[in-house]
Amino acid sequence: MKQPVRLLNRCSAEFLGTFWLVFGGCGSAVLAAAFPGLGIGFAGVALAFGLTVLTMAYAIGHISGCHLNPAVSIGLVAAKRFPLEELPAYVASQTAGAIAGAGVLYVIASGKAGFDASGGFASNGFGLHSPGGYSMLACLLAEIVLTFFFLFIILGATDRRAPQGFAPVAIGLGLTLIHLIGIPVTNLSVNPARSTGPAFFVGGWAIEQLWLFWVAPIAGAILAGLLYPALAGNSLPAEDELR
Amino acid sequence: MKQPVRLLNRCSAEFLGTFWLVFGGCGSAVLAAAFPGLGIGFAGVALAFGLTVLTMAYAIGHISGCHLNPAVSIGLVAAKRFPLEELPAYVASQTAGAIAGAGVLYVIASGKAGFDASGGFASNGFGLHSPGGYSMLACLLAEIVLTFFFLFIILGATDRRAPQGFAPVAIGLGLTLIHLIGIPVTNLSVNPARSTGPAFFVGGWAIEQLWLFWVAPIAGAILAGLLYPALAGNSLPAEDELR
Amino acid sequence: MKQPVRLLNRCSAEFLGTFWLVFGGCGSAVLAAAFPGLGIGFAGVALAFGLTVLTMAYAIGHISGCHLNPAVSIGLVAAKRFPLEELPAYVASQTAGAIAGAGVLYVIASGKAGFDASGGFASNGFGLHSPGGYSMLACLLAEIVLTFFFLFIILGATDRRAPQGFAPVAIGLGLTLIHLIGIPVTNLSVNPARSTGPAFFVGGWAIEQLWLFWVAPIAGAILAGLLYPALAGNSLPAEDELR
Amino acid sequence: MKQPVRLLNRCSAEFLGTFWLVFGGCGSAVLAAAFPGLGIGFAGVALAFGLTVLTMAYAIGHISGCHLNPAVSIGLVAAKRFPLEELPAYVASQTAGAIAGAGVLYVIASGKAGFDASGGFASNGFGLHSPGGYSMLACLLAEIVLTFFFLFIILGATDRRAPQGFAPVAIGLGLTLIHLIGIPVTNLSVNPARSTGPAFFVGGWAIEQLWLFWVAPIAGAILAGLLYPALAGNSLPAEDELR
Repeated sequence: MKQPVRLLNRCSAEFLGTFWLVFGGCGSAVLAAAFPGLGIGFAGVALAFGLTVLTMAYAIGHISGCHLNPAVSIGLVAAKRFPLEELPAYVASQTAGAIAGAGVLYVIASGKAGFDASGGFASNGFGLHSPGGYSMLACLLAEIVLTFFFLFIILGATDRRAPQGFAPVAIGLGLTLIHLIGIPVTNLSVNPARSTGPAFFVGGWAIEQLWLFWVAPIAGAILAGLLYPALAGNSLPAEDELR
Repeated sequence: MKQPVRLLNRCSAEFLGTFWLVFGGCGSAVLAAAFPGLGIGFAGVALAFGLTVLTMAYAIGHISGCHLNPAVSIGLVAAKRFPLEELPAYVASQTAGAIAGAGVLYVIASGKAGFDASGGFASNGFGLHSPGGYSMLACLLAEIVLTFFFLFIILGATDRRAPQGFAPVAIGLGLTLIHLIGIPVTNLSVNPARSTGPAFFVGGWAIEQLWLFWVAPIAGAILAGLLYPALAGNSLPAEDELR
Repeated sequence: MKQPVRLLNRCSAEFLGTFWLVFGGCGSAVLAAAFPGLGIGFAGVALAFGLTVLTMAYAIGHISGCHLNPAVSIGLVAAKRFPLEELPAYVASQTAGAIAGAGVLYVIASGKAGFDASGGFASNGFGLHSPGGYSMLACLLAEIVLTFFFLFIILGATDRRAPQGFAPVAIGLGLTLIHLIGIPVTNLSVNPARSTGPAFFVGGWAIEQLWLFWVAPIAGAILAGLLYPALAGNSLPAEDELR
Repeated sequence: MKQPVRLLNRCSAEFLGTFWLVFGGCGSAVLAAAFPGLGIGFAGVALAFGLTVLTMAYAIGHISGCHLNPAVSIGLVAAKRFPLEELPAYVASQTAGAIAGAGVLYVIASGKAGFDASGGFASNGFGLHSPGGYSMLACLLAEIVLTFFFLFIILGATDRRAPQGFAPVAIGLGLTLIHLIGIPVTNLSVNPARSTGPAFFVGGWAIEQLWLFWVAPIAGAILAGLLYPALAGNSLPAEDELR
């Protein structure tokens, strides 16, 4: 009864969804986190990032599976839940959406006098560019561990035996939790596309440090993609759940 | 088995629901956001606006569809999910409810010595009246983009293929997310009725700037109403979901 | 298949549930709201009150219906959803549970040097005892309007036509929303039992002002109990939902 | 149709889940709570602890039941919902996971210049080591009462008559609520494994005070495990719910 959705439409959904993740998550950080007296702080940014995923998972989960993240797509390939041959199209769409989302955010943020993207523009960084001054090794470890658990939650919550329909809640609020822990460390990525979007506009150090935010999330995601099925036994994804 | 609800009752539900959206959302901003030391800040206001929609969607979704927003009704018309001939009655009910909600809030807020609505009363504004001083163009773009995604979430989460029963969570928390991003820009509207309610009591600049908060949300909503069905293919709304 | 639960057990559940509402909601206010630098503020208290209801509604909804509030029980009587003859037992259990919850909180709060219940102990008040200094009339109006919408949400979310299983989310987060709006006005009641608990230990003005927090919530609840069925048409409660 | 999961796999899931609870909950406290100007505060830590349980309950509830807490396992034994003979393996896995989670957190936290675990490292304490200076008796009472209600919520929300699929929401947000109330008292445990993890790295007073965070949670859990079935009558757990 479910009709397959064409790859072009699914990639368009991934583009829009990742646009939303970066525009919304980074937007809350750039526009609202440090507003004098009334700002939303790191907790508000954590909630915003999680809600981009929760909302899109209900909006496009039935279209594209709502990965919005190259590490998620790769982790699902490792867990044999997503076909390798569609990976390049998904990753390209996600990365393009992230850059577009950061671009529109850049235009809006520039509408305030004194805006300067070199102040960070919600880029991810380590060492000197870690918000709390954490070392490269601490940042690498944090991104690996946090992405591992992000994928572990995704794989578990979309397991056929988990309660149906709740996966977007678990996954979205899981991303909120991950940000509550780790914004001070790396400004929090667990998503190479999300890191690439703002880095594209900041340039310099943000581009130089971008490698870590591709390597660490992908490593954590592959680990989870291999471990979850071994742990869970029969881990077929739910039919009516995220693809 | 479902019996149709008469238009008068549905319009009464839209009136009450939009009253709640404005009374609750703007009320949290006016009464509680900046309370010394313990105030809820922009994050609390964002949560309050989202929860007005979440709670009403469960309370009256089965009566009127719980639009509470002329831009939502128009976007649903564009997506062929709502009949054009009922649009005027819905928009009038929503606008009247918003003004009534702002009126009752005005009475309560006036119960504190020193209250002065000209301080803003949670009105929306741009340029000099943007909370963070954002230009008219930035505000226009922000309201278009944010309303586009609001309608995209509504259309996707009420799609027949999305998990049933969760749409109010996705839509309500989606409105929370939208506020987490954009309160500093325009004080956040995405809803012409919500803008009209407090402007009615503030007058002056709030009325002069009101056009943007009708034009931009409606434009964003129509865009989403045209795009989602094209992207999603067969996008019939769920039978037991928001109408 | 569902077996009826005896009145004694249902009243015990109401006692425990209202204990939890007062211990948890008022406890968060007394113990954690104003902790230097890290306190949870009004937004944290709002979340705590709402979560006491959300958690208990899933825990005892199938036992007693989880009213936890004389105004809720009376509103359900007005809507013909709860039998008048059980009202006295419910209200007595709720009030006793509220006093017991406040008592245990009192013992814990007293374990910190310098604690003094006359500082308020999360009591409700108006005029001089309104947190933000709101007049008696503003406080009366706020409690009537907010309780009206609380009952409206309860009646709508437990309607047979609303999505099943979600009522505790809508009702619990509805109470959070109500607190986000109104803590500065009356310290927020919408629940005569919740007001009676701490007033019992504060005495003096808290007892003198207690009448308003019985009169206003009950008035708002009866209004909603009469209006919702008229608006919604056939409003039978869901079978497997809150009783 | 449901296939039993082997004890080794279930214990591995409990190990990973408790790792996540401690790494995430204590991590948010150590890394992000007091970040200058933008820190998440006690409310953010409360949300983080709750979300570790919510996310894991959807991810591994179908594998191990997602106890993540010796007091939970013991309370479920008292309620005849979990076999006594599997208790030692579960408790050992939970405690080992908690220590491992604290260990990885320790490595990351050490990546910032000036980190010193003797500052607390999110350990639980009473008297001089209570965040708000609460006496041992107040702390003992708070941990007993809060764990009692935590187990009461768990037992109720996983009752066969409660709405299916929502238990992780009720239980996770219940833990958030518990932290909103009690962080100032004991830094909040209700979980002997969670207390043991950081104490292992802090040593000294944290080890000396550890007894209370085994005794009080277990006492509260047993009380709830005995009371809930008596109150609820026929309290079989749901088949498709947390095991």
